[in-house]
Amino acid sequence: MKPLEQRLTWCASFIEEALERRLSGNILAMESPMTQAMRYAVLGGGKRIRAFLTIEFCCMFGGVPEDAADYACAMEMVHGYSLVHDDLPCMDNDDMRRGMPSCHKKFGETVALLAGDALLTQAFYCIGNHDAKESYAANSLAVRALSRCAGALGMCAGQQMDLAMDAQDYDTLKTLHRLKTGALMEAACLLGFYAAKGEPDVNIEKNLETYAQNLGLAFQIIDDLLDVNSTEEVLGKPVGSDAKNGKCTVLKFLTEEEAFEEARRLSQEASALFADYKNSDSICQLPMYLLNRKK
Amino acid sequence: MKPLEQRLTWCASFIEEALERRLSGNILAMESPMTQAMRYAVLGGGKRIRAFLTIEFCCMFGGVPEDAADYACAMEMVHGYSLVHDDLPCMDNDDMRRGMPSCHKKFGETVALLAGDALLTQAFYCIGNHDAKESYAANSLAVRALSRCAGALGMCAGQQMDLAMDAQDYDTLKTLHRLKTGALMEAACLLGFYAAKGEPDVNIEKNLETYAQNLGLAFQIIDDLLDVNSTEEVLGKPVGSDAKNGKCTVLKFLTEEEAFEEARRLSQEASALFADYKNSDSICQLPMYLLNRKK
Repeated sequence: MKPLEQRLTWCASFIEEALERRLSGNILAMESPMTQAMRYAVLGGGKRIRAFLTIEFCCMFGGVPEDAADYACAMEMVHGYSLVHDDLPCMDNDDMRRGMPSCHKKFGETVALLAGDALLTQAFYCIGNHDAKESYAANSLAVRALSRCAGALGMCAGQQMDLAMDAQDYDTLKTLHRLKTGALMEAACLLGFYAAKGEPDVNIEKNLETYAQNLGLAFQIIDDLLDVNSTEEVLGKPVGSDAKNGKCTVLKFLTEEEAFEEARRLSQEASALFADYKNSDSICQLPMYLLNRKK
Repeated sequence: MKPLEQRLTWCASFIEEALERRLSGNILAMESPMTQAMRYAVLGGGKRIRAFLTIEFCCMFGGVPEDAADYACAMEMVHGYSLVHDDLPCMDNDDMRRGMPSCHKKFGETVALLAGDALLTQAFYCIGNHDAKESYAANSLAVRALSRCAGALGMCAGQQMDLAMDAQDYDTLKTLHRLKTGALMEAACLLGFYAAKGEPDVNIEKNLETYAQNLGLAFQIIDDLLDVNSTEEVLGKPVGSDAKNGKCTVLKFLTEEEAFEEARRLSQEASALFADYKNSDSICQLPMYLLNRKK
């Protein structure tokens, strides 16, 4: 296994344990279907890209993974809540998620709705509860970034845009992806920086935003390409689902070659942003790794 | 009008304007059905008890109302989100709220779900965005308190408890009310203190918790009593709805006289807690005012 892959594997297991501790029955008010659904939605898998970004940026800026654990858990809880609510009947009405019944299929709609609400709230508790006095500034900055990127200024706005219309041009589709996917990646990167440094820095924040948005756009393009070019065996889910669902993808506006070239350009640009930093190997390699992923 | 009533009226109008500024179309990512639904759910009324608590405790501890505006708006946004999600078909399935169509009746389920999510997130943005550098500690403490009281350690746990069972004894019903109603009042009181002081204080926090929980329990008791003793004309909503909906109320365990006596005792205890403080008139008068309310 290559170093980056080893690191991704290590991070996934690190964050799994960290999430388990923060969602165990005895630290929540009481054990209930809601707390079971919270764990079901967040534990046991996924790429953990957001947690990885938080942890790796924290390390690049001089911290250690444990410094980033609370914020990385917050990122995964927000990501988990967004999937639970997206799958609900009144949204995408998806019965399956990662090869398993979606949260509302397993626990019912009422509990899934509540579990999503509680996960979003618990994400902010992970931040507010981080290290108390030592990290007031970091916590305040992290809350601001995450709530900006996840709410009506970010992910929720992207979700509303996705529901309301079919993009008529590539720029509109990019705005949708920026809000729906890029914004949460942006929060993940910023939180890693705050976890390590605990203070704002306009120039670094700007670079983190560019890195995250490039990564997010390239990620969406590759998703769209895999959906037409991969096989169910490799991808682990049915291919051709975008066309079947009438989803607007990048291939409405670009050829496959143009799309991959765009993703390559965005990934290279992202890789270059932090090349001069010490300990930036994971951060510099991740974009090209995700560009060439097969699933 | 008595001084307390004047103050309540002033606060309601102060917070209405503060909310309008924080939810105007041009400060959110873009105007959409979701942002309209957010405003519909939060603007235009309600008792604003939570915002009042935040503002009054801030003033009692030496601040001015403007110091508490961000946190008070956060409280009302969380309260608003909880009503929107509670009214959804998979929860209480309520078509009306304060004499108007509930949010999903007006905007559809999808938009109502999203608007609730976005309001909860925006509440944390109000806190994280408060005054930047001057208030890092206050913001971090406020996020911790609000997320603890609103999520799986507080309100969401109460909601789950309410859905899952019919209380078999008065202590269980009190636990439910503590989590579902008291917890958010507790957050409102704590946020007022943090807005003024910006640092933790275990003794004060304990008194704020007691005040809020007494107020919340008494509030629920009076709600239950008004539902059997008031008229639709005075109350502004149908009476007898608890019995009709088979809701477990305090009257399952106490006579009306016992229930009112319990509410009176809780209110008096709350009133006494801050009697020695300067500028505590509103805080000391509020419990007895709410005890004797007619709607």
